[in-house]
Amino acid sequence: MSAAPNTHLHKCADTAAAPVKTTVHFSITDKVGALDDCLAAIKAMHISLTRIESRPSKTSEWDYDFFVDFNAIDADQVRQVAKSLEPFAKQVHIVGAAGAGELPESTPWFPRKMVDLDTFADKVLEMGEELDSDHPGAKDAAYRARRAEITKIAKTYKTGQPIPHIEYTQTEIETWAAVFDKLTGMFPSHACREHQHVFPLLVQNCGYGTHTIPQLESVSKFLKDCTGFTLRPVMGLLTSRDFLNGLAFRVFHSTQYIRHHSKPLYTPEPDVCHELLGHVPLFANPDFADFSQEIGLASLGATDEDIERLATIYWFTVEFGICRQGDQIRAYGAGLLSSFGELEYCLSDKPEIRPFEPAKVAQQKYPITEYQPVYFVAESFKDAQMRVREFANSCNRPFSVRYNAYTESIEILDSKEKVIRYAQSIKTDMLTLVDALEKLS
Amino acid sequence: MSAAPNTHLHKCADTAAAPVKTTVHFSITDKVGALDDCLAAIKAMHISLTRIESRPSKTSEWDYDFFVDFNAIDADQVRQVAKSLEPFAKQVHIVGAAGAGELPESTPWFPRKMVDLDTFADKVLEMGEELDSDHPGAKDAAYRARRAEITKIAKTYKTGQPIPHIEYTQTEIETWAAVFDKLTGMFPSHACREHQHVFPLLVQNCGYGTHTIPQLESVSKFLKDCTGFTLRPVMGLLTSRDFLNGLAFRVFHSTQYIRHHSKPLYTPEPDVCHELLGHVPLFANPDFADFSQEIGLASLGATDEDIERLATIYWFTVEFGICRQGDQIRAYGAGLLSSFGELEYCLSDKPEIRPFEPAKVAQQKYPITEYQPVYFVAESFKDAQMRVREFANSCNRPFSVRYNAYTESIEILDSKEKVIRYAQSIKTDMLTLVDALEKLS
Amino acid sequence: MSAAPNTHLHKCADTAAAPVKTTVHFSITDKVGALDDCLAAIKAMHISLTRIESRPSKTSEWDYDFFVDFNAIDADQVRQVAKSLEPFAKQVHIVGAAGAGELPESTPWFPRKMVDLDTFADKVLEMGEELDSDHPGAKDAAYRARRAEITKIAKTYKTGQPIPHIEYTQTEIETWAAVFDKLTGMFPSHACREHQHVFPLLVQNCGYGTHTIPQLESVSKFLKDCTGFTLRPVMGLLTSRDFLNGLAFRVFHSTQYIRHHSKPLYTPEPDVCHELLGHVPLFANPDFADFSQEIGLASLGATDEDIERLATIYWFTVEFGICRQGDQIRAYGAGLLSSFGELEYCLSDKPEIRPFEPAKVAQQKYPITEYQPVYFVAESFKDAQMRVREFANSCNRPFSVRYNAYTESIEILDSKEKVIRYAQSIKTDMLTLVDALEKLS
Amino acid sequence: MSAAPNTHLHKCADTAAAPVKTTVHFSITDKVGALDDCLAAIKAMHISLTRIESRPSKTSEWDYDFFVDFNAIDADQVRQVAKSLEPFAKQVHIVGAAGAGELPESTPWFPRKMVDLDTFADKVLEMGEELDSDHPGAKDAAYRARRAEITKIAKTYKTGQPIPHIEYTQTEIETWAAVFDKLTGMFPSHACREHQHVFPLLVQNCGYGTHTIPQLESVSKFLKDCTGFTLRPVMGLLTSRDFLNGLAFRVFHSTQYIRHHSKPLYTPEPDVCHELLGHVPLFANPDFADFSQEIGLASLGATDEDIERLATIYWFTVEFGICRQGDQIRAYGAGLLSSFGELEYCLSDKPEIRPFEPAKVAQQKYPITEYQPVYFVAESFKDAQMRVREFANSCNRPFSVRYNAYTESIEILDSKEKVIRYAQSIKTDMLTLVDALEKLS
Repeated sequence: MSAAPNTHLHKCADTAAAPVKTTVHFSITDKVGALDDCLAAIKAMHISLTRIESRPSKTSEWDYDFFVDFNAIDADQVRQVAKSLEPFAKQVHIVGAAGAGELPESTPWFPRKMVDLDTFADKVLEMGEELDSDHPGAKDAAYRARRAEITKIAKTYKTGQPIPHIEYTQTEIETWAAVFDKLTGMFPSHACREHQHVFPLLVQNCGYGTHTIPQLESVSKFLKDCTGFTLRPVMGLLTSRDFLNGLAFRVFHSTQYIRHHSKPLYTPEPDVCHELLGHVPLFANPDFADFSQEIGLASLGATDEDIERLATIYWFTVEFGICRQGDQIRAYGAGLLSSFGELEYCLSDKPEIRPFEPAKVAQQKYPITEYQPVYFVAESFKDAQMRVREFANSCNRPFSVRYNAYTESIEILDSKEKVIRYAQSIKTDMLTLVDALEKLS
Repeated sequence: MSAAPNTHLHKCADTAAAPVKTTVHFSITDKVGALDDCLAAIKAMHISLTRIESRPSKTSEWDYDFFVDFNAIDADQVRQVAKSLEPFAKQVHIVGAAGAGELPESTPWFPRKMVDLDTFADKVLEMGEELDSDHPGAKDAAYRARRAEITKIAKTYKTGQPIPHIEYTQTEIETWAAVFDKLTGMFPSHACREHQHVFPLLVQNCGYGTHTIPQLESVSKFLKDCTGFTLRPVMGLLTSRDFLNGLAFRVFHSTQYIRHHSKPLYTPEPDVCHELLGHVPLFANPDFADFSQEIGLASLGATDEDIERLATIYWFTVEFGICRQGDQIRAYGAGLLSSFGELEYCLSDKPEIRPFEPAKVAQQKYPITEYQPVYFVAESFKDAQMRVREFANSCNRPFSVRYNAYTESIEILDSKEKVIRYAQSIKTDMLTLVDALEKLS
Repeated sequence: MSAAPNTHLHKCADTAAAPVKTTVHFSITDKVGALDDCLAAIKAMHISLTRIESRPSKTSEWDYDFFVDFNAIDADQVRQVAKSLEPFAKQVHIVGAAGAGELPESTPWFPRKMVDLDTFADKVLEMGEELDSDHPGAKDAAYRARRAEITKIAKTYKTGQPIPHIEYTQTEIETWAAVFDKLTGMFPSHACREHQHVFPLLVQNCGYGTHTIPQLESVSKFLKDCTGFTLRPVMGLLTSRDFLNGLAFRVFHSTQYIRHHSKPLYTPEPDVCHELLGHVPLFANPDFADFSQEIGLASLGATDEDIERLATIYWFTVEFGICRQGDQIRAYGAGLLSSFGELEYCLSDKPEIRPFEPAKVAQQKYPITEYQPVYFVAESFKDAQMRVREFANSCNRPFSVRYNAYTESIEILDSKEKVIRYAQSIKTDMLTLVDALEKLS
Repeated sequence: MSAAPNTHLHKCADTAAAPVKTTVHFSITDKVGALDDCLAAIKAMHISLTRIESRPSKTSEWDYDFFVDFNAIDADQVRQVAKSLEPFAKQVHIVGAAGAGELPESTPWFPRKMVDLDTFADKVLEMGEELDSDHPGAKDAAYRARRAEITKIAKTYKTGQPIPHIEYTQTEIETWAAVFDKLTGMFPSHACREHQHVFPLLVQNCGYGTHTIPQLESVSKFLKDCTGFTLRPVMGLLTSRDFLNGLAFRVFHSTQYIRHHSKPLYTPEPDVCHELLGHVPLFANPDFADFSQEIGLASLGATDEDIERLATIYWFTVEFGICRQGDQIRAYGAGLLSSFGELEYCLSDKPEIRPFEPAKVAQQKYPITEYQPVYFVAESFKDAQMRVREFANSCNRPFSVRYNAYTESIEILDSKEKVIRYAQSIKTDMLTLVDALEKLS
């Protein structure tokens, strides 16, 4: 029995691929013809643009915001674009020239709207289509073909679409059944209260059971109802940055294929057993959802160093976290809850247990191919969220963000007008709160 | 030239159709087997259920919430269902037996989740498929067939789907062109600043123009980006209750067909010209979006009398509202902005102008087939929102609601636990606000 | 029986007395010796200063705030002072040169700290020491001497001191007894619920009764416990500006002498019967206290026109207000509650009754020597407070203020740093609120 | 040179003195005569009462609150009182029977209003009038007489009075001068930024200098302006509970006498040098004031164990705290800032430095007669406040409190009505915040 690095994060630094995904956004003043003139100027640059959007300004009451996406060849090109915009644009922001590293004002690229997550699909680090030589299915051509068939869905999936149904084979269902039976036997004594509370709901509403592999679409709708989390199919491992960025939108990238039938209790990579038995139940819990999104929000536009630290915090919580419940310790990390061996081990007296202090957790080294020697114990998810928020405030990002669930987009709170609008919405919430309190019988 | 009742609201009271859409929701305690027992008990009732959902409780930390939908034959049946649940269910709420009128605890049915809006599709009051004899297209079989072809889309549309593309005919485009040119010529001098600000963005992003009828899907996506509002295709006039309930979800029910080509500047019912030129630009404005949702939230579970009052407020704002801008009066109501004649008239010295005081507006009688003799002038959309909220607080509904944009569902704030969770989210927002203020340069 | 203008407000405009009370406040940067240099520079101006204070800056974390008070001879002198400060001071604000009228940046003087109210003592408009010829006591030398003896207390009273005890004479007590018995007989049927609720507490705790004139000090302590309001002895009528400014600090200026014994049921000016029977009970009510302070806060630094409007609102509420209670109308204005005749009249069908809409109230003309022809009916004090706040926001003052009850001072929220600090305190309050909600059993 | 335990806290547990100060508070329903009947019933108990107050209820809109203080002989008597009230009183709370320990519902006594602090005056643990044999002045009869003369002021001081002026002798001034010169020489290199920022203001406004011992009254007024903190003269060491309870009201108990002239750089107890040079500058800082009050609020009604833990936190912060400032460590604890020797030592490499984690700090043992072996370093006062608040939430007290600075009293947030009122005040604050943000230029 071996330790399975059942996790979505890969420690490799982002490799600076040749053309760098870049978003330039800026505002222009509303006057007759301004919108058309601006569009014309952008088009006159002769760059191959992937998107142009103009919207009512969120910064100034009567201005317009422009969002222009393109794949920058080099920092020079970005500089030229910024320069061309100078005559008429206010507050030019460049998001994405991180690789270039030479533009002082630039911020690593991050998704601004839910649909921007579509651009992650083909940036998978590994195992998307090829398998490592030590993968149990590496030499099974039929398995590889089946896997390719399933990951193709993820490659073409777009935001808003239903996740296609997979007709799992009998062999696949048997693999699932072996894992399902083994783990569900351990949950009552090893899984945290939140996991156990949600699990029977998944049986009743989403078809969880020994003989059925639940469909991501059904599970995603259930999670949406509970906390607003949704699943997106993914080909394989994303970069840490992309994966964490998704959490800011309450989007969890989930694989849809299953491990090789030859070793049902082992997998070197995330698979549908890991996602559905380990991750999904927790995302139905409001406090855990808040906690996970908090990590995601902190990752938007973060430096590479901060991404590394946040990914480490993610590793020791969402994947390998344990928590105190009364006078017991229980597992809530998906890497534990989907690994028969490590689930037993983590609650034994063998590993070291430390309190969850994000600044220290962020520095902790960890092995990815064996059981963890150290675990960090959270007092509660609410408490963990507040600690991650404090940690995030100590990071170097010079701006605050909020997620607007109405527009499914990130707002950068970098102007007085945006802050005012946010304060107004809190004021309105306070009115509702007081009204609700008064009406409580 | 005639006054067109370009509006979505119909003054008829809801007719109590035989089987009444009913939702029963209640909580049960989490203990081994409780979920299955509960489900078995519900099924044993032998009612034809349209939906059963079990979810983590929002009221008590470790309970479960059940939602059971069915079409009740009469109040007796509802009473029996409630009685059967008594032994194991806590806090049984019945939503929907309004028509029955005999159950003291019941509340008129209202949609709880965005998908519940799907049930409105076939409840159209009139003109869904038949046309009144005075409709310009009443005797044009080809027009009626085309109309049926388009409304069929609305009849089968489900939440989350893209709104199907309509290939408009040359005749239809010519009708659009006549209206478009006439009205866009008047906007600079008659439409409010908010309308004028957004209009060129619709040209640039959604294909607005003399020679193209914009597609609802494209417009809906644009609105989603701006304010979270979305469009849903509708066959014709909904009941006031259903229509207003939709606004609580920031959903606007929009027709997709166009008026008869014989009278391009007249229509006795809403059509795509009214929606796209009158309504859409305003829904891109955050304050107007807040204002509209406020009316919608007040309408959820309201009494028939309060629905009537809210519908009147809707009439005199979203449809026929005028507002002060500096020292001028301008139109923002869609019924005005899509009616060549009344747009001119409403800013003349002929009609009476009164301040927007919802309690008075709600009592105002109005004609639906001629120009309004009275208009109410709003000081700003924010101000109007606050006034509607005050008005709503004076209504008889014994509970407060909030819309959760993450889960796209309504939360009834009727327990301490729900209020606490809401207060916690406001607290978290305050943390973000303070952080954003501190980071403002 | 006559209508008594039992009120503290005088309609006369402020007369621009020769030297104008002026406060200059500004900030300097913290560096070695800066405080001493600044002080030296101020002293070198050779103006007769009434106060110099240096404090930690509330605007910028490490700066210092200076407050310099003097009586300006003319606008020129103020300009010179401002000019002398220019080399080292940041953000010079001039408060008080209103009379001068020539300094564009200046704001009418207003008290910044509770102790600043001490400067009002000798600015009484009339009747402080002389009596009008139609005053019932005008020709009674003994009465005038007694009155002077009592008003001397007010003239020398300083913030924080206990209000001196008055040993009322038997004649005075008999006057009180006549008024007390007459009015307390009417309260059950004419006074608002809030007045009736508090009255027996005043009997039990502050010595209210037929045979005792309560002492201001005892009453002031009682009010402090209930709502934080306190009483200050006053010689006679203050200007509207000074009187309203006091309310911003929850300070009510109260006379301590009693009307002439010849006409116990009549007085042309406020006296201790009017204060203790009319005003005091209401100031023990939290909502009324909030409402009154709201008017006070709006008056700080307001233009003369806005002071006039706020004074009119004060007149029609705190002095002559009526309110709806269930299906009845009751009196809450002190001018009514202390006037036997008008209390009867105001609830009869003779006067005109209008809803309380501050913008309209502010324009209403009113007689001061006869019964009011019009009254405005408030729905509740909370509602009235919100309406006054809205009205205040529509006034012309370019800054927001808050009262800091810890420091007993007004904070002008005119810098990002002050707003941040305020937001932080709201955040802390939200933490306490959530904690309290969670601990509610 | 020796380590001086310059601190106000004494580690001895509270000794249960014979009669226990007890407050009973309860509510009664407002109906005719209820107040008088209640008062009569209380008087009929024949207990020697120290105070009876009736006030408008803060719990229920139209009820009355009663507060009855007496010195209970034993738990039996308290039980009898509670029993006598049962027939007409709602929600009887007993505060103070801590020593008795037998009443399950009781809470250790704590001050409810600022004036309740007057009861602390004669509960001094030691050195009030007698001196320990190792006190440098123990055998100096003149010093002891002078000390008694000064502490007599504290013994009779009442809330609201100005603190009497002390005419310090030449010998006393010379002692002060020695300490002043020695310490002010060290502040630039050892004191935290906040201390250094305020110090020159104390020189300019409160007469700090080598040749003058500042008067407490002048300093108290300065602090009131800055943060609302005030000083109260105290005879000597209070119990931890009383001393910390004072901080909840932003009241700091300060000695007024000075150490013995024979050893100007040593004192075994707090004296005016310790207070004025160590404590006072920090209380002028808003964040430090918030932090200190937070400890005070947590101490109200806390168990003896929690008082012990809070006193330990107080020791390691307000008395012996150090903090990070940029890349340096500086002292902010008054025990350090007023001790020439330990101020040097604490920033050397000899002591151990640990992060400020209240749960751990609370367990730390400490010597009181020598230099501390361990110090805890705060990141900022805001951060320290948040951590203490978290710690306080983990304590066993079953209710939340807030300080109402208007009424100078503590509110126990133990009913829905009180929480609603609090929520309303936060709502009003949000309105002001939004208005201020909108007006920020």
